Amino acid sequence: MSQTNRRIVLALRPEGPPKPANFRLEEAPMPEVPNDHVLLEAIYLSLDPYMRGRMSDAKSYADPIAIGDVMVGATVSRIKQSRNRDWKEGDIVVAYSGWQTHAISDGSDLRRIDPHAAPISTGLGVLGMTGFSAYAGLRNIGRPKPGETVVVAAASGAVGSVVGQLARIDGARAIGIAGGAEKCAFVKNELGFDAAIDHRDPNFARQLAEACPDGIDVYFENVGGAVWDGVMPLLNNFARVPLCGMISHYNDEALGPPSSDRLPSSMKVIQQKSITVRGFMNVEFIEQQPTFLDEAAGWIADGRLKYREDIVDGLEHAPTAFIGLLEGRNFGKLIVRV
Amino acid sequence: MSQTNRRIVLALRPEGPPKPANFRLEEAPMPEVPNDHVLLEAIYLSLDPYMRGRMSDAKSYADPIAIGDVMVGATVSRIKQSRNRDWKEGDIVVAYSGWQTHAISDGSDLRRIDPHAAPISTGLGVLGMTGFSAYAGLRNIGRPKPGETVVVAAASGAVGSVVGQLARIDGARAIGIAGGAEKCAFVKNELGFDAAIDHRDPNFARQLAEACPDGIDVYFENVGGAVWDGVMPLLNNFARVPLCGMISHYNDEALGPPSSDRLPSSMKVIQQKSITVRGFMNVEFIEQQPTFLDEAAGWIADGRLKYREDIVDGLEHAPTAFIGLLEGRNFGKLIVRV
Repeated sequence: MSQTNRRIVLALRPEGPPKPANFRLEEAPMPEVPNDHVLLEAIYLSLDPYMRGRMSDAKSYADPIAIGDVMVGATVSRIKQSRNRDWKEGDIVVAYSGWQTHAISDGSDLRRIDPHAAPISTGLGVLGMTGFSAYAGLRNIGRPKPGETVVVAAASGAVGSVVGQLARIDGARAIGIAGGAEKCAFVKNELGFDAAIDHRDPNFARQLAEACPDGIDVYFENVGGAVWDGVMPLLNNFARVPLCGMISHYNDEALGPPSSDRLPSSMKVIQQKSITVRGFMNVEFIEQQPTFLDEAAGWIADGRLKYREDIVDGLEHAPTAFIGLLEGRNFGKLIVRV
Repeated sequence: MSQTNRRIVLALRPEGPPKPANFRLEEAPMPEVPNDHVLLEAIYLSLDPYMRGRMSDAKSYADPIAIGDVMVGATVSRIKQSRNRDWKEGDIVVAYSGWQTHAISDGSDLRRIDPHAAPISTGLGVLGMTGFSAYAGLRNIGRPKPGETVVVAAASGAVGSVVGQLARIDGARAIGIAGGAEKCAFVKNELGFDAAIDHRDPNFARQLAEACPDGIDVYFENVGGAVWDGVMPLLNNFARVPLCGMISHYNDEALGPPSSDRLPSSMKVIQQKSITVRGFMNVEFIEQQPTFLDEAAGWIADGRLKYREDIVDGLEHAPTAFIGLLEGRNFGKLIVRV
């Protein structure tokens, strides 16, 4: 047993894309366990785009990480020591314990997972917050009807991959957008989407239109950027656009360089076609999580819900893995084996 | 009785703002009245921003007006001759008979109005489609709760003036945005909004922020343009944005001149604050129109719902009045006395 807590703190707020110098690996004394608390030992750490927002001090739904504080994030952890009657040593939990090897919890933020039901790393992905984000946005906002066309950005990613498979489970057509031939092949052949379109292809817009002969009823947005320009003209009357994330813009510091202003044309389309654009966070729908976990476990068991994880070894590699995530370099849910 | 039908047709599709040359006044023979039909004589013609969209041949929810066809639009008309048992000579109706003195109808598109209940011109405004647009968007999408803050663009206009007064009837605070001191005074003093802000003032954004100390819960958008930049930073979590129109952009032919792209920052705010942006047309909610007409007649009678009409005399002046509408030169619901 290591006698120190290794942790990665925010060293400096990034301007634009984070660089290794924005992070610092530290060693701290192993924390004491107060009465009614537990000591967590992290096994897996989830890396997610939202963390970029927390590194900036812009006003948001959540407070920014202070300089010198541990980077936030969800982990799958083992209870290493318990002074809380509800938890015992060896329990496997999802915790929000951040980028560090050890942490203290009073138990109120822990979710127990069954290590025999599925690989425990899925508690951070398909059976965790990314899977649930897909479910919450699609079921509450997208609401595809059988036969409708659902287009999913970042379709090979942690959220997008679940969105498209859920759409098919609901009887809709699923069209995935991904970057590069390898990811597109995975989306179509492994995940079973009806089609996958490479957004790097110069003919992206035409190919998307061909894959959506009846237009687009639901566009699940978790990327932002130029993909929207291909999607917008295809949106049907009463289309729904769940806005789950805007990863391509998380590094923007302010308005971009002079270019065309795409806001007026977008607003006109939204207005003229009675489209709903709805930002959301999965916590709004958290009461649906138990139902989701039950259903999703069944779909995984019967092969209708597949997932892919991109696992990086060693806490010290979390910063470079995270930087790559913002550039789309991961392939599947990005997880650090601590 | 005139033996000819005077009418204004689309002479040429506009590029950018319409000019007088886009319209042509014609005289045509008085139409014959087929069996089961009625002959309408227009008294008032409604001029509305949506007509600009119909002059272009861009794909939309409605077909464009063909070159040489009569400009579309709602009228209050008198039934001049009836060969339909459901309608009799002298009945006053709202019809969709366009920019002309006379038209034929089979009766299916007519709505009878009571000439004793209110001035019949209100059938085109506060008791017509503009009033109902305000009601439909606010009650179905905006849904203000008592104490919430509702901001209304074009607050002195046909739709905006009703939105703010309805918000107050529902117990919310109403903040109006209008162009110039005269319109602002009308919004605050005559219509009873809690505050009115002049969007031409160089300190517009600061004044809006001061008028909304608790942020904005509902922004009723029917203008587009720079007002959004002042509104966006003030939107609260779970804010609702009914998109009723984008009058400031109806003359845009394509993407504007190089400037900053405001789409990414808008999408980020919508996503991070769980905001709903929903385009709509009042026809989606048409089954609520009878309820609206009943309620609104009561509010007008008890003084809680005021309205202002801007009446122009003579069908031949409809084109210049319409051009002025798109530039915000009207003050109140714009109507032509045919």
